[in-house]
Amino acid sequence: MGFIQNYDDLPMNWVGDWAGRRAALTPYRTALYDAFTQKTYTFQDMNDRACRVGAYLSDALGLCKGDVLALISRNRIESIDLYLACGKLGIILAPLSQRLKKPELDDLLTRLQPRVLVHEHQYAELVLALSVPSSVQALINIDDDQNIFETLILKTDLRAVNVPLAMTDRCLYVHTGGTTAVPKICIVSYRQMVWNSVDILATGLAGAYQKVLITFPFFHIGGWNTFTPLFHAGITSVLMREFNPGLILELIHEGRVENFGAVEAMLQFLIAHPKFAETDFSHLKAITTAAAPCSKAVMKVFLDKGIPISQTYGMTEAGPSNFAYIARSDSLDELLVNSASIGMSMFHCDAKIVDQETGCDVEPGQIGVLCLRSPHNFDGYLDDPARTEKVIHPDGWMETGDLAMQDQDGLVFIQGRADNMFISGGENISPEEIEQALMKHPAVAGAICAGIPDPQWGQAPVALVMFHAGRSAGEEELKAFCRDSLADYKVPKQVRPVAELPLTGAGKLNRHAVVTMFS
Amino acid sequence: MGFIQNYDDLPMNWVGDWAGRRAALTPYRTALYDAFTQKTYTFQDMNDRACRVGAYLSDALGLCKGDVLALISRNRIESIDLYLACGKLGIILAPLSQRLKKPELDDLLTRLQPRVLVHEHQYAELVLALSVPSSVQALINIDDDQNIFETLILKTDLRAVNVPLAMTDRCLYVHTGGTTAVPKICIVSYRQMVWNSVDILATGLAGAYQKVLITFPFFHIGGWNTFTPLFHAGITSVLMREFNPGLILELIHEGRVENFGAVEAMLQFLIAHPKFAETDFSHLKAITTAAAPCSKAVMKVFLDKGIPISQTYGMTEAGPSNFAYIARSDSLDELLVNSASIGMSMFHCDAKIVDQETGCDVEPGQIGVLCLRSPHNFDGYLDDPARTEKVIHPDGWMETGDLAMQDQDGLVFIQGRADNMFISGGENISPEEIEQALMKHPAVAGAICAGIPDPQWGQAPVALVMFHAGRSAGEEELKAFCRDSLADYKVPKQVRPVAELPLTGAGKLNRHAVVTMFS
Repeated sequence: MGFIQNYDDLPMNWVGDWAGRRAALTPYRTALYDAFTQKTYTFQDMNDRACRVGAYLSDALGLCKGDVLALISRNRIESIDLYLACGKLGIILAPLSQRLKKPELDDLLTRLQPRVLVHEHQYAELVLALSVPSSVQALINIDDDQNIFETLILKTDLRAVNVPLAMTDRCLYVHTGGTTAVPKICIVSYRQMVWNSVDILATGLAGAYQKVLITFPFFHIGGWNTFTPLFHAGITSVLMREFNPGLILELIHEGRVENFGAVEAMLQFLIAHPKFAETDFSHLKAITTAAAPCSKAVMKVFLDKGIPISQTYGMTEAGPSNFAYIARSDSLDELLVNSASIGMSMFHCDAKIVDQETGCDVEPGQIGVLCLRSPHNFDGYLDDPARTEKVIHPDGWMETGDLAMQDQDGLVFIQGRADNMFISGGENISPEEIEQALMKHPAVAGAICAGIPDPQWGQAPVALVMFHAGRSAGEEELKAFCRDSLADYKVPKQVRPVAELPLTGAGKLNRHAVVTMFS
Repeated sequence: MGFIQNYDDLPMNWVGDWAGRRAALTPYRTALYDAFTQKTYTFQDMNDRACRVGAYLSDALGLCKGDVLALISRNRIESIDLYLACGKLGIILAPLSQRLKKPELDDLLTRLQPRVLVHEHQYAELVLALSVPSSVQALINIDDDQNIFETLILKTDLRAVNVPLAMTDRCLYVHTGGTTAVPKICIVSYRQMVWNSVDILATGLAGAYQKVLITFPFFHIGGWNTFTPLFHAGITSVLMREFNPGLILELIHEGRVENFGAVEAMLQFLIAHPKFAETDFSHLKAITTAAAPCSKAVMKVFLDKGIPISQTYGMTEAGPSNFAYIARSDSLDELLVNSASIGMSMFHCDAKIVDQETGCDVEPGQIGVLCLRSPHNFDGYLDDPARTEKVIHPDGWMETGDLAMQDQDGLVFIQGRADNMFISGGENISPEEIEQALMKHPAVAGAICAGIPDPQWGQAPVALVMFHAGRSAGEEELKAFCRDSLADYKVPKQVRPVAELPLTGAGKLNRHAVVTMFS
């Protein structure tokens, strides 16, 4: 150790001042293309806006380092303005999903105790119905007609705004979209955001592109984790207010987007869109998938068009980006063959797969619980140290709760959620294993499985399937098909066809909904 | 703060295992082209070599984390093998300059107390003459004829070698090449090496290239600081055993090099080389200069060929990379106009310019002492806390000792060393200012100035000048030329022509030598 004991605790000017640093280095480069307004902003523009917003928050509203600003909005430039301004001042941004209901939002606001609540005008009714806590001293309505951002906040006198921050200071409060009853609030430090950006850049996931589309909402960390490395490295972000497959295809066609990340459902919407067939994909250099394993069938559609597509993996608590499949050759065949793999852990992220009982590393080929350790670990759940201690060990290892297997080549495959496992007649069953078996049937485009109460076995597997257009299969045929590859106790007792699989707000399979549907 | 107090102190697998991480991510990509042997190595090759070397150091020699390995060698692949292997084990690599003399090397070895001393065969005589301390248990001779590396060390059974390290662990002991009597030994942590690499990648200095030449020797941090970001980001390093202008021009001509860093003297050697005129520079994307301000005349030669060239700035204690000129346009005119600027501080590096007396920030346009603060600060001088405290303040600011000025556009210009200043008749004189005045004379290719003892004024300025080929000017003419732009007391009392300016081992102007020559 040298003279200074700990640089993570040392306040420095650059830590939260993404906007100021990038404006100093590359002022005239394009930082943002807003596909909704079709306006373009340089890094200097973004810094000027962030300085004005910061001056307003500081001077007009009296916000200080450590105060919380809650935000209910789609992906707007004003969301980015607030993120960059909060970074300059050490204000903690708490983005809230507009998809949540009043009881959930009331609960989150009570726990967050924000000083300011900013919302898009279209959520005014939702916000008015909320039990806003007394901590909230200002309500800011982003209204496209009489936008207080344009008419007041962005008219604030331009002055440099910057408070030195430490890497350990809090950047975001992000609620996880999980399917559990009460949303958890993750404490996301500057250390986490900076290091995850660094890991994405060093691993090679962003530097090769000049224009990248942000597809994930800013109320998930995925949105900020797409934006931050791009802004960090001086790459252009392309912004959509909300997921819009037709607009994405237009942006691709016009050569405005070289790369984007997506969940499988987004890709399915793109494929199903009438414009898909005529879209010129020649400027699209690559797609990465995230949030949940993407099916080979969907990946193949893009590979057949010559577009590299591969999986990534991460979680808010440990990443948000932790794994990425980095192609080892120029061959798209390699990507198809290994389409089920999430690749390797990123440069600055340790990974191990351990036996759920003993905690010892499992052998290659064996399934265990995936654990991660990196400087982009989160800093715990807000006001919930007991829950925090369950996921992060004192030696830095974080239990993901995901089952994984590493093959002999070092490639890792997610095998399902450890806590999705259910027990039927004393046997552990992973619903993902059954889903993968069903997906191998040529008629099946998607499948979801869960364990429902069963008088005989305690729990028993059931499934919903979605068919490829123009195809179908009978329940008995699908059960027989499963019986060829699965032990009898894993064969679903019931299989029902659906038009769409139930998804959570985060685009993940919603197995709780399956239980409800069958109960 | 979260559950874990300090990630910099947390041992993690990836911290020193550059080789293992890169081999996992991009095993088949080219890591290194050795221009001396014309051999190419993948990241997998480099990791295999590092594992074998690490196994040898650990199993055969019993080296452990914290032990010191001293190295006297030109830039060889074996140097890189040792660097990567030491990273896997937490062994501290101490590269020593072969240009040092026995008393300096004896002194360094006594202070370093290495367990192993590795040297190239050609320095065997030098090494045999040294007073090697008793800590040294093994002497390894890298001999191209009967290379122990090839025949023994690289034949060690391949096994994974990795000790989790913390960012605060020591990576390198680097002696600074300064012109002071006793070399200082800088403690370089993994935090410093990782963060400087990150800063180089985020600022945008390496990611745009696929093949970069290492021009700086590995006994300076500049060598490792070129190699590390390249290896980190999966870019190909091109290796030369020593600076060889003919070879560099060949590599450029063959398209094997897209970028390199250089000190001005190296560029002058390239320009003076017979191959220069016929070299095809079309694959060379950019050059950066380092170590000392590069003259506009030399930069213009490359700009005239259409090659972007710009300055960087840094110091072992604070960087080694801290500033870079990032072009704001595609125009080479911009680079010529701003050729004297080192640009802006890098993304993760705070900079300020303060008054030497008061310590307060100076206004734009005023000259003050440049101070830097970043996570790539060094960890102090080995066993010299008093000296360490003189350069790093408890709030993280490092005094560079360099005089700098920031213009209204935010661009920074180095104005000389604060400690090069001398006093003549009560007036402060910066020798760099006089050198810059002399360089404006059309006949002058280079100049160096220093203060020598003077019975009347205490000290008085004198200068050496180097002329452009085929040109010259008389002493009185040069003095008169200076008198046009400098105060009388700054006009050198004597000006002598020389064929080459005296340089330090690090390629910087050696003003102490000027004092000696005139005394």
